[in-house]
This record gives sequence, structure tokens and C-alpha cells, in this order.
Amino acid sequence: MIKVTIWNEFRHEKKHDIVKHLYPDGMHTVIARGLAGDKDLQIRTATLDEPEHGLTEAVLADTDVLTWWGHVAHGEVRDEVVQRVQKRVLEGMGLIVLHSGHFSKIFKSLMGTNCSLKWREVAEKERIWTIEPSHPIAAGIPESFELPNAEMYGERFDIPTPDKLVFLSWFQGGEVFRSGCCWERGQGRIFYFRPGHETYPIFYNPTIIKIIGNAIHWAVPRIQKEDVCPNAKSLEVIPPRKVDYSFVPEAIRKNIPTA
Amino acid sequence: MIKVTIWNEFRHEKKHDIVKHLYPDGMHTVIARGLAGDKDLQIRTATLDEPEHGLTEAVLADTDVLTWWGHVAHGEVRDEVVQRVQKRVLEGMGLIVLHSGHFSKIFKSLMGTNCSLKWREVAEKERIWTIEPSHPIAAGIPESFELPNAEMYGERFDIPTPDKLVFLSWFQGGEVFRSGCCWERGQGRIFYFRPGHETYPIFYNPTIIKIIGNAIHWAVPRIQKEDVCPNAKSLEVIPPRKVDYSFVPEAIRKNIPTA
Amino acid sequence: MIKVTIWNEFRHEKKHDIVKHLYPDGMHTVIARGLAGDKDLQIRTATLDEPEHGLTEAVLADTDVLTWWGHVAHGEVRDEVVQRVQKRVLEGMGLIVLHSGHFSKIFKSLMGTNCSLKWREVAEKERIWTIEPSHPIAAGIPESFELPNAEMYGERFDIPTPDKLVFLSWFQGGEVFRSGCCWERGQGRIFYFRPGHETYPIFYNPTIIKIIGNAIHWAVPRIQKEDVCPNAKSLEVIPPRKVDYSFVPEAIRKNIPTA
Amino acid sequence: MIKVTIWNEFRHEKKHDIVKHLYPDGMHTVIARGLAGDKDLQIRTATLDEPEHGLTEAVLADTDVLTWWGHVAHGEVRDEVVQRVQKRVLEGMGLIVLHSGHFSKIFKSLMGTNCSLKWREVAEKERIWTIEPSHPIAAGIPESFELPNAEMYGERFDIPTPDKLVFLSWFQGGEVFRSGCCWERGQGRIFYFRPGHETYPIFYNPTIIKIIGNAIHWAVPRIQKEDVCPNAKSLEVIPPRKVDYSFVPEAIRKNIPTA
Repeated sequence: MIKVTIWNEFRHEKKHDIVKHLYPDGMHTVIARGLAGDKDLQIRTATLDEPEHGLTEAVLADTDVLTWWGHVAHGEVRDEVVQRVQKRVLEGMGLIVLHSGHFSKIFKSLMGTNCSLKWREVAEKERIWTIEPSHPIAAGIPESFELPNAEMYGERFDIPTPDKLVFLSWFQGGEVFRSGCCWERGQGRIFYFRPGHETYPIFYNPTIIKIIGNAIHWAVPRIQKEDVCPNAKSLEVIPPRKVDYSFVPEAIRKNIPTA
Repeated sequence: MIKVTIWNEFRHEKKHDIVKHLYPDGMHTVIARGLAGDKDLQIRTATLDEPEHGLTEAVLADTDVLTWWGHVAHGEVRDEVVQRVQKRVLEGMGLIVLHSGHFSKIFKSLMGTNCSLKWREVAEKERIWTIEPSHPIAAGIPESFELPNAEMYGERFDIPTPDKLVFLSWFQGGEVFRSGCCWERGQGRIFYFRPGHETYPIFYNPTIIKIIGNAIHWAVPRIQKEDVCPNAKSLEVIPPRKVDYSFVPEAIRKNIPTA
Repeated sequence: MIKVTIWNEFRHEKKHDIVKHLYPDGMHTVIARGLAGDKDLQIRTATLDEPEHGLTEAVLADTDVLTWWGHVAHGEVRDEVVQRVQKRVLEGMGLIVLHSGHFSKIFKSLMGTNCSLKWREVAEKERIWTIEPSHPIAAGIPESFELPNAEMYGERFDIPTPDKLVFLSWFQGGEVFRSGCCWERGQGRIFYFRPGHETYPIFYNPTIIKIIGNAIHWAVPRIQKEDVCPNAKSLEVIPPRKVDYSFVPEAIRKNIPTA
Repeated sequence: MIKVTIWNEFRHEKKHDIVKHLYPDGMHTVIARGLAGDKDLQIRTATLDEPEHGLTEAVLADTDVLTWWGHVAHGEVRDEVVQRVQKRVLEGMGLIVLHSGHFSKIFKSLMGTNCSLKWREVAEKERIWTIEPSHPIAAGIPESFELPNAEMYGERFDIPTPDKLVFLSWFQGGEVFRSGCCWERGQGRIFYFRPGHETYPIFYNPTIIKIIGNAIHWAVPRIQKEDVCPNAKSLEVIPPRKVDYSFVPEAIRKNIPTA
């Protein structure tokens, strides 16, 4: 059983008219319902306005894979919670970052880069190409598929070179984008997936849900390992050694007590 | 002319007896003197206890490559300065992180990982192997060379897989370590170099200085680029498009004003 | 059920006195027996002196993962069989290359490099470090383990930078080596594993067998895909286009019938 | 001075009407003329129908960077010459593979994969995006630029994951492609660049020539190194060691003379 926490900022759905009607219970609920058919998953949701953003130590300790959607309120996510999530990813927890989550504190902290990109919102067509058909996240996904309406994200996407680039996007307006990117950090796996704009019905699309489900299975912790930085005994016998100061200029060497 | 800033925590040299005698003017001074013969370099130094740690906006704007040595006082480096350095690296400035700098805020911020490792201090022998002889940082460096006395750093080193692994270390006590690691982040280049323990005369060793010099040349900014996340006009004509709601359940779709 | 073919050159075992006594039925038989406890595996063996080296089209079509040990007779492996194996790897079959297989035609063909290294045979100690503990090939393997006697292989190992470096070796005589290396080529996965010298009882060591078993599980085909290079219809409407010759010098342009 | 050899199959230019008029002296001549303004380059050309395809040992020994264009006659390139080129690349020579050279013997030998792709020839528009603006091959190249007419190459391109992906293409018909890919193999650098179809005036385009020129500068040998696989003396003293047979079953161990 894979324990999944679907995290959502859940603000657009309360404030913007179209989003409110499109996702009356929030995008997290639609994602959770979409994945409900996968009997390997045990799903909970969490949102920004819950205490500790719904991501207490207890919740994270009980999460194998966390998915993240945020946009207008990245700055309201408390640093302490971000550090808690990062610690868990480095210990082994999987993380799936969706769409505008590219600018979330947690993604930027794990990447170390600006994670910036180009964007445009005119409901244009996006075609997503599977360039690594044998990758588990692409299992059952066609060679290419279309989203009839998408916010455009264009290169240059300021990320570290992905360990594996699974999906590439073509946009009607002329841009391209690295849309499905895998990294490993510490013991954890991270997948960034581009689609997911709040004003279009992206999370009702079964191909999108299938990819998120595949990514969850891929990101399951292989091990759980706490960070340590130990003083280690030698495995081989090391006879006592005198320090060699031969490169040190005489004027300095003569003052070193141990020289 | 490459503008280099040699940064040093400069605390051990004031407090610990052996270090005080070994590096009376600080390790930064010995590194700077070691590099003085390279007429392509214009070198300044900066230390923790200077105002803004010697890393003002003006100094960083005038720096092509920054080298970093820190150990006991990582926590005293102000977050604001760390962010300033990170911003400059992502814009193109090179960064050379030395030895115990693996645990510095700036290195951890750029890597996104814990950067932990194993360690032991018994003056044991280290042998460094050049595994990418054609890499510019290895230019003129022999296939292998020895440090007669070193603090041991052992795997697992918790870093993102390096873009290029240039040096590997063998330790007398039985460990191995990825000792020379290259990454690119944003527009900048980062090199981590393992040797540099304060109680041994590492920075008097001409092979070590040669590697640091090579790394400085390698890390020179190729471009300087400010971070942007622009709203981009389309390059192709996009006829007005209506949003396709066909995947949205009827019960929800009927309430969407634009559907 | 994973179909495994253990391939062995099987020459040393017939000719060299110690090897004959150590592996009277061949190293392939000892590996196969070592893996026999894994009920997910259906194991066959194949050797150089069988017709078509035991690697007929039918055998390969019925193989999920192939392991390869060769040394003195790399040159006797027929090019036609090498191409057949390479084709299958690119279609999805896993390949585990052991020890002196680094110089096999199949490994060199897949890597594109010389695959050369340093070597020495004095029964010295090797210590293998697990640097990616969360990698499936490292499952259940300790942080480090020793082989009391090994042929030394030292860097520089002339390979493409591995996608993932799982094991690093330390040798008593002073060398280091990238001992467990993963690559993906086409749809297939490749693992190179250093240990396996014929004059030492390496394949009787349960840790070595466990790693080979883990690697077999990791290398199982995710998909099977024949190579194609198709002429593709466009997915978007492309109005008829006239070729733009504006960069061509007038003297040439005037002679082009379509200009 | 960088010694460059521009290699061209030079068959289309003799046989196909449009190509004959577009490149009356061959594409190699147009490339060479395009690069003539770069005073760091000393350029020669070589073609398939010359003795040894113009790539004698002497020519290759005197070449720093080789560029390769081939298409209809890949099969006519002699294996002996391919091996000679591969040996030189692994020793340090740079190689720039253009367009339909993706299916050349030399590129496939160095990649180890099928190097297949999708294609279509309808003179459609291609837009090339620079995704690594700080890479030397992108120096002076705009964020994106258009080729008004191109043969389409689409993903999946069956190559090893590039070390660095510099350019991505968008096609009018709906495809995307990894158009500028860097690898290092042995001591040599390899750049694959997608544009270059013989029936369109691609090599008259100054941006294309600038990229080829940048790639030549990037691919200059850093070192020249012959392949060796030496028996190496130990660097540390290894006392005589007895082989440990403790894992070998008693029934076998009792017959081993040295046990």
C-alpha cells in the first residue's frame, strides 16, 4: 500500500469564478478521485489553510509520495514546513511537483536554481511527446497526446539538467518545454510535470491522471534513511603518522610546534 | 582578466594553535599567494568577520569566480549574503567550494541535498586519481598524486550526481570519495574540491594550488544573465480558442459559465 | 517469471589448472546455482563453444536479461551474434556485464568507447563501497564489503559517464574503480559489475550473487520495442510552402529551377 | 590554429537536380566558405569518393575537429575508415555530426544505439530554441531562430541521454526534437546538430554556420591520448596473500591445489 498525500494551495478554487465552478471541491479532490481506482494507493489530501498546511510531522512520516500544486501563495508556505518536507524527500519520500509548483519553495530548495520559465495564457493547444517510452512514468502513455487548452510554459526552464527527460511539449504558439523531468536527491525521487493550469480542466483528463499515478508508483521510497555525518573508524590499520611539512616555507615551518 | 575573490571563514587560524602557526595570515592568503603567478587572475580576499562578510553587492558584482572555505562558523554566515551569492552563481559567477565548505549554506542551497559524508582525522595518506584527464580542471595534473596527510572524507557523499566527476580519492584507512565534482546551475559553474584541512599544510601543496587555479579558469562566467520569468507573446498565430470541457462530468460542466 | 541467460566463455575452466578445480562445471553453473533460490528467475546457461555461442535468435527472443562473462576469447565471438545481442538490448533486453567482459565486443559496441583500464593480479584485497544505497541493485547490500582476493582494476576506466554509479572500489595496492555502473541504451538497461576474476572464488560469494540477482531484477525489460525510422504524417495542417532562398548568393540562386 | 576537416558524402550534389544547382561545388564547400572568416581555423575538405574517403591516417592525424555529412551512401563508408575515425575521436579529436549523419556508421558506433527518429520532408518551418544559453556552442545565438524550410526530424531520437542538450526544435507539423546534443567519449567531444537537409539552403544560413563554428571551437582536443590497458605496479606495499576459499563448498575446495 502506497501512502499518498495530495497537497493543494486551494486558493484559486475559492476566489476565481471559473476555477470555483470547474473545481468546486478543489483540484486536490479531483486528482484524488481520479486516482481512486488504483487499489495500491491510500490517499489523503492536505491544503495550505489547514494547521501546519496539513503537513505535520505525523502526516509526513506517514506519507510515501507527496504531490504539490501551488501558485498565488507560494510565499505563505512556512519555511519550517518546507524544511520538513525537504528533509523527508532526502530521507526517501517521493515528490511530484505539478505545473505552477515550479516556483514553490520546496521545488526551488531541492533544485537550487531559479526554476523560472516563459509563460502565456491563451488556451492554446499543447502536444506532449513521450521521449522515453520505456520509463515507468510513460507506461501506457501514447507516443504523443494533445491538451486542447493549456497555459504555455516555454524554455529556457531554469532547472538542473534532469537525470531523465520523459516528456517534451510542443505549443501551438511556437514554444517547446521539458515537461516531464526526473531527478534523484538524497534517497528521494522527484518528478516535475508541467500540465495543470487551474482555469482549464486538465485534472479531469485521464491521460494526465494516469501519468500522475505512474509517477507516484515510480517515486515510492526504495529505502528510508536518516541523514548522518559520522566520525568513522578506519577499516585498515593506519600506523601513527607524522605530518609532512616539506611544502611549507622555512620561515613559517620553524614556528610550527609539531613540525 | 579574471576577477577572483578568495573567501575564508578565518577562525581556526585565530584560535587553534597549530593552525595559527601553519597559516599565520589565514588560508586565504596562502591560496592567494599560491595563485599570484597566474597573470590572468586579479585576486582579492574576503573573510567572515568583515562587514557583510566581505561579500557586498559591489564585491560580488566585481567577482567572476568565488572560492569558499568554511567550517566551524557556517551558521554565522547571514542568509541574506548566502542568497546574494546564490543569485550571482545562477547569473553566471563561478563557485569553487573547498573541503569543509561541503556543509556551507551556499553549497547546500545550490545542491538541494544534505551534503553529508563520513570523516576521520588521523593524518592518514590520501591518493587522488584523475579520472577525466581531458577535463580542463585536470590539465597538467598527474594520473594520481598523494597527500601525505589528510582528514578522511568517505562515501556516501550526499550530493546530486555530478555532471562530471574529475577526481576520485583513495584513503589509507579504506575509504573512497568523489573528490572533484562539477555541476552547472543556472548560468554558473560549481566545482567542489575535497582537500583542504586546516591542520595540514594542504594549501602549500603546488598540485592543490594548480587544481584550484584550473578550476577558476574553468568556472569563468560564459555569460551573465539576470533571472526573468516573462509573459511571452506567441511566435505563431493562435486563432481564438474555446475551452474543451469534454472530460468534465456533466454535473459540474453545466455550472461552468464558459462551458 | 524473468527469463535469464547466463553466458560464459567457458575456456579458462577447461584449460587452467586452478580454474578447472575451482569451477569444474564452469562459472556460469556456479552463478546459476547461486541464483537458484530466487523463484522469480527461470535460468538457462549458454557458452561460447555451443552452436551460435548458444545465443540463437530463439534463445535471445526468450531472454529477458543476459549476463556476460568473457576474457581470452573475445575475438572468437562472431560479429553476427554480437549484433543480434545488441539489437535485443536496444529493443529492451537487460544486459549484465561481468569483470573481464569490459573488453567484450558487445560491451564495447554498446558503450562506443575503448573500455580499457589498469589491472594487476596479486590476490590483493578489494573493498566495495555502496554509494547509492537507495538504488535497487544495492538493496540489502551493506555500506561496504570486502573481497579478500581480487584482481585489481584501476581508473581511468574508459567508459561514457554512467547514468548512475552504484559501487566504488578501493584496492589495497592504492587504486580506485567505478565498479558498479548503470546505463540505459535504446529501451534496454545495462549494468557493468567489476568483480569476477576466474582464479579467485568470487562467484561463490553470496554478496556478489545477491548483487547480480538485484541487477537482473533491475534490468528486466520495461517494454519491448522494435527499431523503426518512420516517415511521419504531420499532426498539424501545413499549408504548401515555397522554399526561401534569400541567403543563397544571387549567382547561384538564379540557376535553381525552384527559386 | 584549429585544423578542421569538413567531410561530405558529396553524392546528392552530383545526382539530384535541385541539390546540384543549390550546391554546385558540394555542401562541404559552402560550409568551408562560411567558416572562412574565422582566422583560428585551418580548413580542408574530404569526400567519400576520394581514396580512403579522403580520411587517411595522415589526414586524421592532422585533424583537430572533423565534421560529417552523409545520407544515401552510409553503407559505402569502409569499416576500416570508420574504426580509424572512432579511434581518433577516443584519443581526443572532436566530431561534429550534421543532420542525416545521425545514421552514419561513425555516429552509431560512438553512440551504441540505433540513432533512429521520425522524419518528413514538406518544407515546413522549424524553430530552434537555445535551452543552454551559457554553453559555448550557443554563444551569440538568439533565444530562438527560425528555419523557414526544413526536413522534419521528430522524437523519439534513439540516442544515449546527452551530457548537455543545447538546442530543442519545434516543427510546424507538430513535432519536437533534441537538435543540439553534446557527448564526451574517451578523450573526445561529439556534437550532433540536426539541421542540414540537402534540398534546402540550410548551409547558406549564417546562424547555422555560426553554430557549426562554435561547435568546432568547443570540440577542439583538450588532450591527445592513446588507448592503453596497462598492467600496473601497486602504489602501496601488498604483503603476500593467500587466497581465501571459505565460501567454496568443501567438496570442491578439497580438490583445489592452492586451497
